[in-house]
Amino acid sequence: METKPTYHVFVNGDFMPAPQAVLHVSDLAVQRGYGVFEFFKVDRLTPLFLDDYLERFYNSASHMHLQVPHTKQELKQILEKLINLNNLEESGVKMILTGGYSENGFDPTAPNLVIQQQPLVLPSKEKVEKGISIITHEYLRDFPLVKTINYSVGIWLQHRIRERNAEEVLYFKDKIVTEFPRCNFFIVTKDNTVVTPAQNILKGITRKNVMALASKKYKAEERDITLEEVMQAKETFLTSTTKRILPIVQIDGNTIGSGKPGPVSLELLQDLINLEKHVLTGATV
Amino acid sequence: METKPTYHVFVNGDFMPAPQAVLHVSDLAVQRGYGVFEFFKVDRLTPLFLDDYLERFYNSASHMHLQVPHTKQELKQILEKLINLNNLEESGVKMILTGGYSENGFDPTAPNLVIQQQPLVLPSKEKVEKGISIITHEYLRDFPLVKTINYSVGIWLQHRIRERNAEEVLYFKDKIVTEFPRCNFFIVTKDNTVVTPAQNILKGITRKNVMALASKKYKAEERDITLEEVMQAKETFLTSTTKRILPIVQIDGNTIGSGKPGPVSLELLQDLINLEKHVLTGATV
Repeated sequence: METKPTYHVFVNGDFMPAPQAVLHVSDLAVQRGYGVFEFFKVDRLTPLFLDDYLERFYNSASHMHLQVPHTKQELKQILEKLINLNNLEESGVKMILTGGYSENGFDPTAPNLVIQQQPLVLPSKEKVEKGISIITHEYLRDFPLVKTINYSVGIWLQHRIRERNAEEVLYFKDKIVTEFPRCNFFIVTKDNTVVTPAQNILKGITRKNVMALASKKYKAEERDITLEEVMQAKETFLTSTTKRILPIVQIDGNTIGSGKPGPVSLELLQDLINLEKHVLTGATV
Repeated sequence: METKPTYHVFVNGDFMPAPQAVLHVSDLAVQRGYGVFEFFKVDRLTPLFLDDYLERFYNSASHMHLQVPHTKQELKQILEKLINLNNLEESGVKMILTGGYSENGFDPTAPNLVIQQQPLVLPSKEKVEKGISIITHEYLRDFPLVKTINYSVGIWLQHRIRERNAEEVLYFKDKIVTEFPRCNFFIVTKDNTVVTPAQNILKGITRKNVMALASKKYKAEERDITLEEVMQAKETFLTSTTKRILPIVQIDGNTIGSGKPGPVSLELLQDLINLEKHVLTGATV
């Protein structure tokens, strides 16, 4: 099942080598795709922006009528233990909370909590330097504000993304763009305003950080963005925990701006990297 | 994990007692809620309408870019072996095909196939005799024609169903009713026409059988039905593999028709029970 080096995984109170991390098939994720999750970065032994991710995790769980079986403080201790056990250089931690082992395959019970940690796979330097090509697709997630495990459409679209030689797919609804399956979206307008969609999106932690950084140097707005406005933008980029800022230079075959990563995108990426360093060295941000 | 008697489960080529039926947490159902499934009834050792269910299972898999790791003939042999092993009086068999163990938690790999069998829980006699109360909710499934495992909205709504003292929730979109999370919907109009939604639904096997039975005695139509038309119907009922035909007497607090299960609904239920008996005794239908 696993050929890569084995890391420890936490499942319902126990730490175990990854190959042993299993759930019974009656779990409501298997039966009905029901669960929420969270994913954050860890630099050596330090999680980045952990409080933000934990807050969103508890909010997602609560919205889906699931109860995290630990207080935030307990969960932090579990995470600390796991991170120490695995002792990785640069990693990602994923916490999944499912609907639990359901007797009738439909009604949620006591949730199952799984925490995995793996080395981080960052975007290649080439992608950052050249920018990426994306496609668009009309779709609105069932619970846009909640980080559920339902990625049926996002994964189904992987086929189409490959067919079109693209890297990602940007959702829109009624001509208003929203988000990627796993990333947020930004544009830089002709007058150097940094804009990101306000509604019907998962509020990314990286998105929040980028907005804070952008507002120090530029006009920064959260509002609706039409597909038409996107095509006329000077720069476009995506944000995510893993990808930080990734410039987008082509959308549905149309070249955006100069066709190269723009100066605002690259500047904000550097600011974000500096912010992360700043946080890691313990300085107040 | 299980307190009930243990049945055998099939997981990726092996038959095992239910408590041993596990999937690794890297499975794409756990990670991303990605998978399809099928559920059919078994009377002693005989599956009912198996070919219809198998056809839909392979179609669902194909639509979601998943490949069933067996031919239909092989799968029939697996099912026969499982059904013989468990030797239950009246049961339901569920086949789940997931996106497989994903290295990166996003891209599908070789699917995992899980087949569970459990005693059938039929609706109580009281529910059939008195009819049930339902609520409505505006929602369209992501892949309406496909039996995916994504029931996020359906399960999330269980809370609201209980709050309103109802049994089920009927989806509609733009004032057109479609289906329940796990059942199809029918109305009987004032002129005794039996009507079921045509579009944006999972094409139920019981729905198909009921339409065939209805068309022998009544005018039977597949077409759009508005919420308004539903409220003015003489009778309404749902169909599903487990529930067969279940009369609906109240929708969003409004009484339908006489407020009691209607003669057409009950007649069709008897016709369906007779059809099942007919099939089981080996007569050509």
